[in-house]
Amino acid sequence: MNRIDGRSFDALRPLELERGCNRYAEGSARIAFGHTQVLCTATVEDKVPPFLRGSGKGWVSAEYAMLPRATHQRTPRDSTRGRPNARGQEIQRLIGRSLRAAVDLEALGERTVWIDCDVIQADGGTRTASITGAFVALVDALRWIRDRNGLPSLPLRHQVAAVSVGLLGGCPLLDLCYEEDSGAEVDCNVVMAEDGRFVEIQGTGEDALFSRASFDALLDLARQGIAALHRLQRSTLDLSPEEGILGG
Amino acid sequence: MNRIDGRSFDALRPLELERGCNRYAEGSARIAFGHTQVLCTATVEDKVPPFLRGSGKGWVSAEYAMLPRATHQRTPRDSTRGRPNARGQEIQRLIGRSLRAAVDLEALGERTVWIDCDVIQADGGTRTASITGAFVALVDALRWIRDRNGLPSLPLRHQVAAVSVGLLGGCPLLDLCYEEDSGAEVDCNVVMAEDGRFVEIQGTGEDALFSRASFDALLDLARQGIAALHRLQRSTLDLSPEEGILGG
Amino acid sequence: MNRIDGRSFDALRPLELERGCNRYAEGSARIAFGHTQVLCTATVEDKVPPFLRGSGKGWVSAEYAMLPRATHQRTPRDSTRGRPNARGQEIQRLIGRSLRAAVDLEALGERTVWIDCDVIQADGGTRTASITGAFVALVDALRWIRDRNGLPSLPLRHQVAAVSVGLLGGCPLLDLCYEEDSGAEVDCNVVMAEDGRFVEIQGTGEDALFSRASFDALLDLARQGIAALHRLQRSTLDLSPEEGILGG
Amino acid sequence: MNRIDGRSFDALRPLELERGCNRYAEGSARIAFGHTQVLCTATVEDKVPPFLRGSGKGWVSAEYAMLPRATHQRTPRDSTRGRPNARGQEIQRLIGRSLRAAVDLEALGERTVWIDCDVIQADGGTRTASITGAFVALVDALRWIRDRNGLPSLPLRHQVAAVSVGLLGGCPLLDLCYEEDSGAEVDCNVVMAEDGRFVEIQGTGEDALFSRASFDALLDLARQGIAALHRLQRSTLDLSPEEGILGG
Amino acid sequence: MNRIDGRSFDALRPLELERGCNRYAEGSARIAFGHTQVLCTATVEDKVPPFLRGSGKGWVSAEYAMLPRATHQRTPRDSTRGRPNARGQEIQRLIGRSLRAAVDLEALGERTVWIDCDVIQADGGTRTASITGAFVALVDALRWIRDRNGLPSLPLRHQVAAVSVGLLGGCPLLDLCYEEDSGAEVDCNVVMAEDGRFVEIQGTGEDALFSRASFDALLDLARQGIAALHRLQRSTLDLSPEEGILGG
Amino acid sequence: MNRIDGRSFDALRPLELERGCNRYAEGSARIAFGHTQVLCTATVEDKVPPFLRGSGKGWVSAEYAMLPRATHQRTPRDSTRGRPNARGQEIQRLIGRSLRAAVDLEALGERTVWIDCDVIQADGGTRTASITGAFVALVDALRWIRDRNGLPSLPLRHQVAAVSVGLLGGCPLLDLCYEEDSGAEVDCNVVMAEDGRFVEIQGTGEDALFSRASFDALLDLARQGIAALHRLQRSTLDLSPEEGILGG
Repeated sequence: MNRIDGRSFDALRPLELERGCNRYAEGSARIAFGHTQVLCTATVEDKVPPFLRGSGKGWVSAEYAMLPRATHQRTPRDSTRGRPNARGQEIQRLIGRSLRAAVDLEALGERTVWIDCDVIQADGGTRTASITGAFVALVDALRWIRDRNGLPSLPLRHQVAAVSVGLLGGCPLLDLCYEEDSGAEVDCNVVMAEDGRFVEIQGTGEDALFSRASFDALLDLARQGIAALHRLQRSTLDLSPEEGILGG
Repeated sequence: MNRIDGRSFDALRPLELERGCNRYAEGSARIAFGHTQVLCTATVEDKVPPFLRGSGKGWVSAEYAMLPRATHQRTPRDSTRGRPNARGQEIQRLIGRSLRAAVDLEALGERTVWIDCDVIQADGGTRTASITGAFVALVDALRWIRDRNGLPSLPLRHQVAAVSVGLLGGCPLLDLCYEEDSGAEVDCNVVMAEDGRFVEIQGTGEDALFSRASFDALLDLARQGIAALHRLQRSTLDLSPEEGILGG
Repeated sequence: MNRIDGRSFDALRPLELERGCNRYAEGSARIAFGHTQVLCTATVEDKVPPFLRGSGKGWVSAEYAMLPRATHQRTPRDSTRGRPNARGQEIQRLIGRSLRAAVDLEALGERTVWIDCDVIQADGGTRTASITGAFVALVDALRWIRDRNGLPSLPLRHQVAAVSVGLLGGCPLLDLCYEEDSGAEVDCNVVMAEDGRFVEIQGTGEDALFSRASFDALLDLARQGIAALHRLQRSTLDLSPEEGILGG
Repeated sequence: MNRIDGRSFDALRPLELERGCNRYAEGSARIAFGHTQVLCTATVEDKVPPFLRGSGKGWVSAEYAMLPRATHQRTPRDSTRGRPNARGQEIQRLIGRSLRAAVDLEALGERTVWIDCDVIQADGGTRTASITGAFVALVDALRWIRDRNGLPSLPLRHQVAAVSVGLLGGCPLLDLCYEEDSGAEVDCNVVMAEDGRFVEIQGTGEDALFSRASFDALLDLARQGIAALHRLQRSTLDLSPEEGILGG
Repeated sequence: MNRIDGRSFDALRPLELERGCNRYAEGSARIAFGHTQVLCTATVEDKVPPFLRGSGKGWVSAEYAMLPRATHQRTPRDSTRGRPNARGQEIQRLIGRSLRAAVDLEALGERTVWIDCDVIQADGGTRTASITGAFVALVDALRWIRDRNGLPSLPLRHQVAAVSVGLLGGCPLLDLCYEEDSGAEVDCNVVMAEDGRFVEIQGTGEDALFSRASFDALLDLARQGIAALHRLQRSTLDLSPEEGILGG
Repeated sequence: MNRIDGRSFDALRPLELERGCNRYAEGSARIAFGHTQVLCTATVEDKVPPFLRGSGKGWVSAEYAMLPRATHQRTPRDSTRGRPNARGQEIQRLIGRSLRAAVDLEALGERTVWIDCDVIQADGGTRTASITGAFVALVDALRWIRDRNGLPSLPLRHQVAAVSVGLLGGCPLLDLCYEEDSGAEVDCNVVMAEDGRFVEIQGTGEDALFSRASFDALLDLARQGIAALHRLQRSTLDLSPEEGILGG
């Protein structure tokens, strides 16, 4: 089977990952998975949500949105619609959980890192690109905190990246573009740490059920794709061995 | 390891499932998974959302909410807070997807079935109880449509039920209550059809990563729990062989 | 004249009143007036609204809502509509005023009792059923406060219950069901204390004006119906003479 | 007992009622009950709410609001608070019901009269002043409809006015000002037609219960006050005998 | 060219300006520019917005709204629409900036003066009438503050008034009414202090561009109109020489 | 006087203007005025707002927003705050008016061009950069309409660009960056067409009044800056003589 853009079933799209694209944020990254482009910023705030006050622990909170013309058809803004978008809220909850898994919240102390993922252009995989790019912004923000506050080490526990996999015409595919995603019988988003363990798995078969065997094949494919994303993150961040447990 | 309520690791909580608890709705059910109680109603509307008009296809749309004192602490109402609750929106999207997988939307014709899941009391597993109970309300609403409109058969493709599984202290547990859920390292919700294939899998490891092996153990446990729920649905609905593909 | 359900003009519908239906709330009750069913919970909070801070006085605040399919046609949720429902707000203000009249707010101290009345099924009289059921939940919450805080006595001043009366075809009727209520020329809700004095009277004649004589007949009928509700509340609550001024 | 402003217990405050204060509205009036001032406009719209389309019947819909500094302390605007005010919604529902009782909705045809009552200054009795003034605006709008559309007669059934009465220190008082209203044990708003029959009665005893005898005394007092308001409306409107059933 | 109402090109409409029209506000004024009527109140609050706390400086904040039937067609209320009106927000920001320019915010101390401008009837020029009338309410509120708090002098820096000018059929006109404003090629609002210097200039040519020469002619015309408004403000306020720098 | 970044008083910041940065929009541009960066897209919709239906005329509607971390401090999203931002609404109204002045709305026909200006990074002048960049996106969208619909010519009347000017320390400055803007006594935004005529002038002197002479100096400076922006737009768009009246 030939994919729309000629890729093999297990190939990622062309990747771009650029650090420091925003001059104000404590950490920032621009990431592209093919035509999907996301701006990620990390903002440090010296307080935590009410439920953590006095706990000594920190927090990571994420927001996700799309520019109106990130999509083929223009999408009205949430502020015009007067209410948040359910899909966006679901995605930002996923981003937040995934990045909290990466951070040592105790070592972070009573601080919040706000992650903003704004989709400039959408061609499938915006949530996985967001997680992968936001991790880079997050690490730079953690370095900023470490240096400003004299922390003994980076409050980082894991390296986190994400990719989508799916079944299209019965065939497992890695990193679906929008057109593939629209036609897929099964769509699965996988968030994984540097040691191959999972942070989150979301598999959905609205148009078709999926068997355990198919699902296993998808997870294998995801693992391979995420390994490449982990390598890209590490080289972009220029991580030193002292900065953590991060080993491939 | 002893569970809080003395169950074995692979036991469901006491189940209750009652059809027809609402005198107005085209289908309704009250379900209890232990102390978790949900009222499910199915409402038939003779129109579809804009994107389906003229397509000949139907739709299933779900809404989920909790009564303010369903929880240990009183939760303010969404209408008081002035905005929908992100967690609730995520859950109702899951319920909607899961039940659409059960229905033959072409055979349904241009009709919408609205599913309302209102949690009367919450003790963990409200989303899985909602899906399991809502399936019963849905089938009665589909019967109502079939009988009113002389459809040749029930527009049903699959039988759908759901359960939660998780790792607590490294141990896989079936059907977590609130206290177990709060302490679990990994939480996974599984929606499955009558033939053992998956509709949806959502595995989350915010406090801990999880290995492929643990995840496999969780899926095995879920399969076993859902089989029991499928049996309960079938007997409650008194499904006749003519009503469908439903066989265990 | 025969009523729809065969009752005599001065008969209440079959009543059900069950205490303690919610395992988390400090007080709770499920009440049914015929097919009308309401869940009432009372939640104790150790603070008061801003206008009472430092006053030493407590408060009772009520919220009222209907499940979407409590009604013949499904009603969209307030949170979906994005704004509170005017009818519901009017009713919850009435419930709040009525229950505050029952409580000794000075003796209560700086605490708020939140009353939630959620209509599971609606067949007329939801506001009067709510007040009557909520009183039971309230008393159990006051007992909880008394026992927890060593109050010398129950901070209760009055026993409060409510019923609807109306004119249909010129005939006064007690406890109208939905079909009667829709056709009634005059609709009146009466809230009364144990000594026959009024807490609130709301008489409305949108489709017809009403004379002083008719109104007097309605108030007589209401008094008789409320006396029966007072007896039911007392036996359900198992009120002891020491608990208050409550005598028939 | 002397009242704050020296009135006798059964005296209204100085009344002002001016027709045609707005140059655009189909009907308008400015009314003052002492320091309480309300602007009332009536707007004619050639359509009806969805539930009346095709019925041949018309509708009257009311909105009520206060300017921010109508009150002793400035009140934030609803649009700033982002949600409608529950008290205002309750009042506008009362105004709407009261004026619909005045109109022959069949004869009105499929038109809506929008009533806007905006309180310029508030010193108690704003809802009763609103109803009394809005009736004048309404009649002018009905005349406008009659003349524009060649209706055979004014689609008017009743003359409607309203006043507040209350018990203060056990004494029945007519037309309470803000200070009296704040201290009253019982507050009652009465809407009455030209023949002495009631449109609406709302009696509330939050701080004290009230007996049947006290309530009877309040209704007597209200009747006397409303008769004076009816006379003022008639002379202001310069009603001709042909315009209706209106006789004192 | 003859204007609709017979005015010469450089004539203001008949002006009315009345102080103290509201009995509760610390300052108030009713202003009319022809058929345009605005109620302006000034409310003193003993705190400032968060960004000024601890600064020793005060603030002036303005809100602007129209009654629903201020206009030829009834305009739905913001609270009904559920969101603030963009035009209204733009105008209230202009009013706020203009009046802050008039006040010595340091001398005011940590207090906020809230300005409310409510348009009773609109016939063009509502924002300029609002600014001109609100200045009068503001000065009375500043006098109230001075007298209550023993300030050495009125915390006033400038006298501020505003007028609209525009090009209609190529002709510069002063103080446009609604019909002129609708047809104008260019519309310009000018806010000016007592010494002829500008506070704000907003010139808009949506239907036609405008040259520097035309714009100069408009500013000349505005200056002349504002001088008359300054005189009216001074006589209405009965300003004494000791009260400030205000000289024509 | 030396400016912060070493520019002379009449120098623009380094400009970047890139066409076609979005692969879905009918027109798009990325513009930078120094560190200020804005993404502008133009979307074509084949319908018009209600007030233009059947008129044969088209419309241009603009929306403006900032990414949360476009600013030094993170700004919460409008959708999180639950209400649109007043400053943003004012700016998008300005952008809409300015671009409508550029278009021949009759020749456009019943179509709407939606302009979205999203600020990626803000360092002063976001509204003027938005107008200048959006013009480029708009022209490409008009070309798309012309080519798709066989219009005889481009429905364009004027070339529009904008710049800010201000007084800082009494000195007129062109194209203020954020730090200059914060300190400026007077801030003025000027929108101008290719022939030197004005589309819009907004001059504000909150912290200081401004004389006619200063204002004249600001307008002169703006004219010179806008001429450079016009040249950049023309070369970026590669406008041919046949495409319009555009000549410098």
